[in-house]
Amino acid sequence: MIPRYSRPEMTAIWEPANKFRIWFEIEAHACDALAGLGVIPKEAAAAVWEKGDKPYTEARIEHIDAIEAETKHDVIAFLTELAEHVGEPARFVHQGMTSSDVLDTCLNVQLTQAADILLADLDRLLAALKTRAEEHRETVCIGRSHGIHAEPTTFGLKLAGHYAAFKRGRDRLVAARAEVATCAISGAVGTFANIDPAVEVHVADKLGLKPEPMSTQVIPRDRHAAFFAALAVVAGSIENLAIEIRHLQRTEVREAEEFFSKGQKGSSAMPHKRNPVLTENLTGLARMVRGYAVPALENIALWHERDISHSSVERMIGPDATVTLDFALGRLAGVVEKLVVYPEKMQENLDKLGGLHNSQRVLLNLTQAGVSREDAYRLVQRNAMESWRTGTSFQDLLKADPEVSGPLGQEAIDALFDIGYHMKHVETIFARVFAEG
Amino acid sequence: MIPRYSRPEMTAIWEPANKFRIWFEIEAHACDALAGLGVIPKEAAAAVWEKGDKPYTEARIEHIDAIEAETKHDVIAFLTELAEHVGEPARFVHQGMTSSDVLDTCLNVQLTQAADILLADLDRLLAALKTRAEEHRETVCIGRSHGIHAEPTTFGLKLAGHYAAFKRGRDRLVAARAEVATCAISGAVGTFANIDPAVEVHVADKLGLKPEPMSTQVIPRDRHAAFFAALAVVAGSIENLAIEIRHLQRTEVREAEEFFSKGQKGSSAMPHKRNPVLTENLTGLARMVRGYAVPALENIALWHERDISHSSVERMIGPDATVTLDFALGRLAGVVEKLVVYPEKMQENLDKLGGLHNSQRVLLNLTQAGVSREDAYRLVQRNAMESWRTGTSFQDLLKADPEVSGPLGQEAIDALFDIGYHMKHVETIFARVFAEG
Amino acid sequence: MIPRYSRPEMTAIWEPANKFRIWFEIEAHACDALAGLGVIPKEAAAAVWEKGDKPYTEARIEHIDAIEAETKHDVIAFLTELAEHVGEPARFVHQGMTSSDVLDTCLNVQLTQAADILLADLDRLLAALKTRAEEHRETVCIGRSHGIHAEPTTFGLKLAGHYAAFKRGRDRLVAARAEVATCAISGAVGTFANIDPAVEVHVADKLGLKPEPMSTQVIPRDRHAAFFAALAVVAGSIENLAIEIRHLQRTEVREAEEFFSKGQKGSSAMPHKRNPVLTENLTGLARMVRGYAVPALENIALWHERDISHSSVERMIGPDATVTLDFALGRLAGVVEKLVVYPEKMQENLDKLGGLHNSQRVLLNLTQAGVSREDAYRLVQRNAMESWRTGTSFQDLLKADPEVSGPLGQEAIDALFDIGYHMKHVETIFARVFAEG
Amino acid sequence: MIPRYSRPEMTAIWEPANKFRIWFEIEAHACDALAGLGVIPKEAAAAVWEKGDKPYTEARIEHIDAIEAETKHDVIAFLTELAEHVGEPARFVHQGMTSSDVLDTCLNVQLTQAADILLADLDRLLAALKTRAEEHRETVCIGRSHGIHAEPTTFGLKLAGHYAAFKRGRDRLVAARAEVATCAISGAVGTFANIDPAVEVHVADKLGLKPEPMSTQVIPRDRHAAFFAALAVVAGSIENLAIEIRHLQRTEVREAEEFFSKGQKGSSAMPHKRNPVLTENLTGLARMVRGYAVPALENIALWHERDISHSSVERMIGPDATVTLDFALGRLAGVVEKLVVYPEKMQENLDKLGGLHNSQRVLLNLTQAGVSREDAYRLVQRNAMESWRTGTSFQDLLKADPEVSGPLGQEAIDALFDIGYHMKHVETIFARVFAEG
Repeated sequence: MIPRYSRPEMTAIWEPANKFRIWFEIEAHACDALAGLGVIPKEAAAAVWEKGDKPYTEARIEHIDAIEAETKHDVIAFLTELAEHVGEPARFVHQGMTSSDVLDTCLNVQLTQAADILLADLDRLLAALKTRAEEHRETVCIGRSHGIHAEPTTFGLKLAGHYAAFKRGRDRLVAARAEVATCAISGAVGTFANIDPAVEVHVADKLGLKPEPMSTQVIPRDRHAAFFAALAVVAGSIENLAIEIRHLQRTEVREAEEFFSKGQKGSSAMPHKRNPVLTENLTGLARMVRGYAVPALENIALWHERDISHSSVERMIGPDATVTLDFALGRLAGVVEKLVVYPEKMQENLDKLGGLHNSQRVLLNLTQAGVSREDAYRLVQRNAMESWRTGTSFQDLLKADPEVSGPLGQEAIDALFDIGYHMKHVETIFARVFAEG
Repeated sequence: MIPRYSRPEMTAIWEPANKFRIWFEIEAHACDALAGLGVIPKEAAAAVWEKGDKPYTEARIEHIDAIEAETKHDVIAFLTELAEHVGEPARFVHQGMTSSDVLDTCLNVQLTQAADILLADLDRLLAALKTRAEEHRETVCIGRSHGIHAEPTTFGLKLAGHYAAFKRGRDRLVAARAEVATCAISGAVGTFANIDPAVEVHVADKLGLKPEPMSTQVIPRDRHAAFFAALAVVAGSIENLAIEIRHLQRTEVREAEEFFSKGQKGSSAMPHKRNPVLTENLTGLARMVRGYAVPALENIALWHERDISHSSVERMIGPDATVTLDFALGRLAGVVEKLVVYPEKMQENLDKLGGLHNSQRVLLNLTQAGVSREDAYRLVQRNAMESWRTGTSFQDLLKADPEVSGPLGQEAIDALFDIGYHMKHVETIFARVFAEG
Repeated sequence: MIPRYSRPEMTAIWEPANKFRIWFEIEAHACDALAGLGVIPKEAAAAVWEKGDKPYTEARIEHIDAIEAETKHDVIAFLTELAEHVGEPARFVHQGMTSSDVLDTCLNVQLTQAADILLADLDRLLAALKTRAEEHRETVCIGRSHGIHAEPTTFGLKLAGHYAAFKRGRDRLVAARAEVATCAISGAVGTFANIDPAVEVHVADKLGLKPEPMSTQVIPRDRHAAFFAALAVVAGSIENLAIEIRHLQRTEVREAEEFFSKGQKGSSAMPHKRNPVLTENLTGLARMVRGYAVPALENIALWHERDISHSSVERMIGPDATVTLDFALGRLAGVVEKLVVYPEKMQENLDKLGGLHNSQRVLLNLTQAGVSREDAYRLVQRNAMESWRTGTSFQDLLKADPEVSGPLGQEAIDALFDIGYHMKHVETIFARVFAEG
Repeated sequence: MIPRYSRPEMTAIWEPANKFRIWFEIEAHACDALAGLGVIPKEAAAAVWEKGDKPYTEARIEHIDAIEAETKHDVIAFLTELAEHVGEPARFVHQGMTSSDVLDTCLNVQLTQAADILLADLDRLLAALKTRAEEHRETVCIGRSHGIHAEPTTFGLKLAGHYAAFKRGRDRLVAARAEVATCAISGAVGTFANIDPAVEVHVADKLGLKPEPMSTQVIPRDRHAAFFAALAVVAGSIENLAIEIRHLQRTEVREAEEFFSKGQKGSSAMPHKRNPVLTENLTGLARMVRGYAVPALENIALWHERDISHSSVERMIGPDATVTLDFALGRLAGVVEKLVVYPEKMQENLDKLGGLHNSQRVLLNLTQAGVSREDAYRLVQRNAMESWRTGTSFQDLLKADPEVSGPLGQEAIDALFDIGYHMKHVETIFARVFAEG
């Protein structure tokens, strides 16, 4: 996570002010529950809200840090500072709780906050993809497998495919958000020895979380691993679209280009260059977000009821993965929204191979006209290779080949080269993809 | 995937006989659908089933391999061999389809077959964990955070926590199975140019899959990445339990041991040793299964409508990840089922620290008796450190300390050391964990 | 590791016959050393060689496996079978040794054997790259950054760059081979309690290894991690060249093509297609070999003097990484050796942008003619953009622009478009790269 | 990279002031070389040094950032600001160079600076390990394999093994530093079209680098991948030692403890706890540093002469990996320097198994006394199992077993239990490990 690839809304989640605010809410809600159970005085719980419910300013945060530097314990530092505001009733705060109750529940609140931003990011990206897909529903271009021209498709279909992928990513993120939306206030080893389970239920409810069915001082880390893995898969889909655009912007292809603002300089050395730098950048950012899943997966296997090895990892990948993915999704949405598309160039590239993309269709018609599959293949390949080598139109070659024009007839061959053949199910696919979108 | 860590049921999924069988079914069902649409003769479709529906024997497989060695194309080799059985109507087979229609749909069938075995594996493991958890619901042992004694828990609770983790893993696997349970028969770039979408719908239905809403010759690889990531998270949970058992079997701890059969030799050099080799082995296997998620995530970003870079990865991790995880789950279930548990040793270890695990409880009672949190902490820490250093009973020290026994009273101190305090919510947690288990 | 991506010479290293042969040699050499020290009778050591030095046939291997199935201990099974051949003196075999002495030293012998094959693979690849680089030293083509035409280079230079990368990979592999070329015969925890260090020195010497300075039952796994990391970097270089070729073979680029044999069928659906399937395949294989470094790095942190979690990982990645990399290097060498290069197409692509690749040169000459850098940039960019948009020759536009032709003069502008300018240091670079190659 | 896990000396390397300083030096040295070649006026080169050689203050950096915000190009922003200081001669700066010449060479300077700090870190750690190893050369403790007591070793030997590992890590880092200590000033595609190779040679020399034999706008990324992989292996060794200490600090083992300062609070809930939080933290940090190698390996395969996907990755892992590793090495050195060691507890743990660790020795002596290996194994195992189960001294049981005491004799059995037997080669191993240390 570096400023260059960060957006303020997401970074704010990981800043001390937000963290301490969440800690405060956990403690204050817990006090309410404890007061309800008669464990602590109702007045104490009320005092916490009345005197403690204030913003965590820079000054407060610095003061907490100073206390931590001495005690080497962050939650104690936080509680000590809180006590300065709350006064005597502060001794009832954190009753029967352990630091991890606060830390782990807070992390999960932060992750759900981050997930909400990421879901909004995905919604913007999905909207952009849908709009551009519909705009280019009928914009014919060549489809390529192995980087080689295959059969025609439309640019709208390309975008629809990416829409579907990000839709799945969104669904997975919703599931991943639910995974980490749990609250644990269960004590030193999760037995609720010093605190009633009702406190956990109350705090969970107030924070929009569910009680963790079984924690062991910590919330189990398979949840978080699943969360970061879901981000990694979204990153893979970002990379997929980024690479598509980079390919389309290649000099030899140039079917689309990232928007290039007036003042922008492409290269200090080659002023004519318009480089797909945003999508190249996204390719790299995707590597990072995918990479963060690796330590997240290693975090699952903690020792006994917990060790704290996961903590340093999460202090880093918590912000790094969410901030980077947020930035990447935002950047990608912008790229899609403003992408410059060149339909004429798409048509030009499509025409380059003289109709070879209809070879499969010819093959089919030959077999249906009674030619054996093996022979049909040989005939099509013979003329295709000739067309490929000489640049002569595939259509003309087929008509001139008696073994082909014999069984099919000249007119039927011509009919095999209309583009509508390839477009006839575009609407069906759009209906499938955008059905509930 | 090596024989040592493989089980036949899972490896069979990845063997040629199963693969070709699935290919045959895809082609034969597609013929039915094509015949239904009037694209090919009904007799042709019938002939495929009548003459082609035979087991793929070693001899057939070798013959297909021989053809592939020549044509360097696996699906053409398969079709050529099939044609030898079906005869003339074979020219209607694979009409309008592309190789990937067969290959990708087959891969997904294999992955769902694999997922079904893994789900059964998880069920066995869950059953074992539940049985042993209930058996040891009240078996008291010390809970440890940071490897250091914390507060008491029960061995049943430990197992319940792992049960909950594998239950979540099962839920994720069900979701992951659904991710890859799709079928694509959409042609060279996914436009259905040469084949009607109804064929896909029919084949999907027959194979228990759903039609892929939008494929591009290939089924999008974010699905498979999500699948392998789900396996990786399960592997993390295996590692977590494996490490727990390895810790419990340490010479100094010895609260549990892997079952050690009569004839088994532990070490060529040190015959007294009983090593937790199965769980150590599982730790390594978990590394592998987690590691396979890395290339799976890289597979998402294919070029344009597809490149084939994902294929070699999947030929390896398809079997490797599922076979290894199947083996690991089976091994772990066996370990849990036969785990030798030493409740007396658990009690002995719990007693080692002379009641220090009640320090939190003492702290709470002091604050409730009106001592400030800071003072209470100081008092508890003073006596705890003394007990730790000298081995004197914490309980005795507290009673001898007037600053503690003053506010609390001798009898109340004794009452703070009964184990029931820590056990009172065990049932609640069990109810939560096994609610719908 | 699957047969499809394996070559027999490398797989043989990982087969039981080779493993048991190495075990035998370790034990037999150790007997010699023990006899030299007077620990066991000289006749016993002689008997081991005389009666035990026989090939490990299928029959012997099956017999060993049968014993292991019973004892669940591989080294004991091996020794038991060996004793059947050696007879009574067999009781002196393995004196004071521990299983890991045999297993770990064997693994390192296997890894050095594998490294030797990989080094030979790299030599073949380097030779192919050098030959083709020299063949195409002057074959001009456009260099591309960001996928966009930049300045001219030569196809020979491209290959020279890859040569240099694999040369570095070779150097790293030599270093990595040295890392794992160590021998440990140091007993249960590495103290040589039961065996004299002289035995280790002797066996190491006989096997071409160095004694491990400090082992702890096992040879430390940072060595192996470094080894597999070195393979991963080579895999990255394979991927780099593979992607270059895939790009060059794109329909729109077509500057080079993988060799396509006569009988080969490219696609069942589109017979005209020639797909870069070998380099796509290599891209996937590279993902695998890179991925194996992840568990290898996790293997370093074993518990105390050793745990056996690394073992299952190594049983898998030992063969998988070396066999896959061997196959990939062989495949890549073949691709390079037979690569079909189209110099005319390279020239055609170079010409496509009407000389825009000389923009940097024009810029430089303008600044040297007294124009400020800012103005020069603006002038070049203006004409470049015009040329890019309209397709008009950049050279003509510059000559028609008085702000450019004023300071530079028409003739000087023409002189800025000769290709020799870009080629003048090719020889220098070749000399650098192939200096000691 | 977060402040909590960062040290100022290392973070300074990655701050703008250092980056711009390096950029300035590259440009200024390049001007000298260009002036020497007569390409630009000597006075211009002199002016760059005279007027431009000033610290990059906050104000300057903000100004550069403001220009970049407009031009969206960092090197142009830098040059524009430099021109404001240098004046008219500034138009000769960056002559014939491309941005990557500056950026890539700068990155490599930063990486070598980082490597120098890491080497110093390793030296401190090595010194600490050596000192403590020598201090505890004869401190006997039990060696453990599989977490199970094996044979005695010394605490000094444990530390010596880690010393050897970090010594290897240091050697690998020296090699990795050399890998990235290269300079490229070769132009847009590496052909030196617009700049003489002599400039590169001069700048490399002045910056303590070597000219990159063949660059393609960028320095090839296999170098950087090898660099980050070397850091990852060091991280693995950190984890290895961290886990050793965590194990030794377990409540049941307690042979060593991280230093615990007076004021420090271990847990808000359990004041008696002294947790190995530093080494747990190091375990997590190691996961991160290992993880950064994954995207570094993916960075190798750039498109054609370069794409910029590697850049965002390096902007993140450049600082993240080096800062985190620096912090981790410093923390670990502190842990080792101040580690509290409990030799009496080591002896107590060693004695726990009643001499079972001599079983191998007994086995050997039995075979040397003429008992067959199989029988000897059975006899030792029988008594070992009895001792393990009942807690009776192994030594006593052996003497009471006529099948053992017959061949060996009572006195000889007693002699088999002296600890000196296990210590006799400690000096030899120390000599090996610290030979050239």
